[in-house]
Amino acid sequence: MSALLSPEELERRLREVGEARYHDKHPFHARLHSGQCSKGEVQAWALNRFTYQAHIPVKDAYLIARANDPALRRAWRQRLVDHDGDHDGEGGIERWLRLCESLGLARADVQAHRGVLPATRFAVEAYVNFVRERPLLEAVASSLTELFSPKIIRNRVEGMLAHYDFVSPESLSYFTARPEQARRDVETALGYVTVHARTPAEQQAVIAALEFKCDVLWAMLDALHHAYVAPGHVPPGAFVPVP
Amino acid sequence: MSALLSPEELERRLREVGEARYHDKHPFHARLHSGQCSKGEVQAWALNRFTYQAHIPVKDAYLIARANDPALRRAWRQRLVDHDGDHDGEGGIERWLRLCESLGLARADVQAHRGVLPATRFAVEAYVNFVRERPLLEAVASSLTELFSPKIIRNRVEGMLAHYDFVSPESLSYFTARPEQARRDVETALGYVTVHARTPAEQQAVIAALEFKCDVLWAMLDALHHAYVAPGHVPPGAFVPVP
Repeated sequence: MSALLSPEELERRLREVGEARYHDKHPFHARLHSGQCSKGEVQAWALNRFTYQAHIPVKDAYLIARANDPALRRAWRQRLVDHDGDHDGEGGIERWLRLCESLGLARADVQAHRGVLPATRFAVEAYVNFVRERPLLEAVASSLTELFSPKIIRNRVEGMLAHYDFVSPESLSYFTARPEQARRDVETALGYVTVHARTPAEQQAVIAALEFKCDVLWAMLDALHHAYVAPGHVPPGAFVPVP
Repeated sequence: MSALLSPEELERRLREVGEARYHDKHPFHARLHSGQCSKGEVQAWALNRFTYQAHIPVKDAYLIARANDPALRRAWRQRLVDHDGDHDGEGGIERWLRLCESLGLARADVQAHRGVLPATRFAVEAYVNFVRERPLLEAVASSLTELFSPKIIRNRVEGMLAHYDFVSPESLSYFTARPEQARRDVETALGYVTVHARTPAEQQAVIAALEFKCDVLWAMLDALHHAYVAPGHVPPGAFVPVP
């Protein structure tokens, strides 16, 4: 039986989860950021990650639908704005599509999730269903990987611009706004779990929710690494880079 | 726009899906059946596959819950009997647990899905949700991988007995009954989709459902292969074989 943690101690435990399990520790990211990826690997990463990006407002809408508190719904609504924008051609999903296009992928293929790894789809679906079905506290906690995203984004942008001649600052515009948005989002979510995890069991559930979310991100990179870094493992029907 | 297929042509198309995508084509199975796996790899296979086995009656119960036809429910009910038995200590899940124990895994760890790869959980959850949420026709069609299972089971049993001194005929008792059960089950399911897929679109949906199910099985082996065959890729928190 665990003891009740102070808010500071809970945050420290959450940060430990990130130290151990956030996907910045995955070998594929080291490869991506240090210029070791082929263009086909970068394409496969962007294509598969689009499936994740495209479902973020879906999971956020499920969370809003389940929140009884107008203040939480209002705060969370900003995430829909960030990803979907206010008009056609705006928002994070559109910017991710442009990244895919700048890498030579056809917009319609990406939007249709054509060639996306089944393992990516399964992981993203597990995340959406987690937010839809688990207690609201855990659904909120599963967003806390954003505690760790500003650092990985900084490394990614610097690394990709330095190492790939097919990557331009414009193509990475998705990432420009993300660190500030993540800092704001994480303040809401961390504040929420600190106040609402009132028992040791609830605090452990919050920690487990963050571990689950780290597993989702890790599994997506495992699938990419297996299919595209080790040759000969692209599963039937998935994207095959043009040599 | 596809044409309406005859029942024979539909079955031929379904068998083509198996030729291209069933997991007997996966390199991990070649490895497992030809004696190239370490004991730790065989343990990891059995442990992860248990998570799949344990959810089979769950997905079958969802299918029964959605079937309005007593005859279909009755036929499908036999699957519950096969996996859960009539008494404690019987049924396919119990036999799979004994296989895990015979390989040196602790029953309680296996039953708790401890150390199972997140990618396995996500794939199994995707399968259960597919059966729960997609049209009944597609849910039935997703079981049709059993068209291809008698052959893989024969190869597996012969290969594992020939190549691993830690595998005995008793430990493989799960597989004894399966080919006959699969033949009976597939007769029901194939008969159902042949009668109920009445439009070209429905026939294409049946084929796609079988492709989806093949993707589930393939993704499970990809995850195993990545984590346990290539060294150094076991994800955080997953089963680590004792050297």
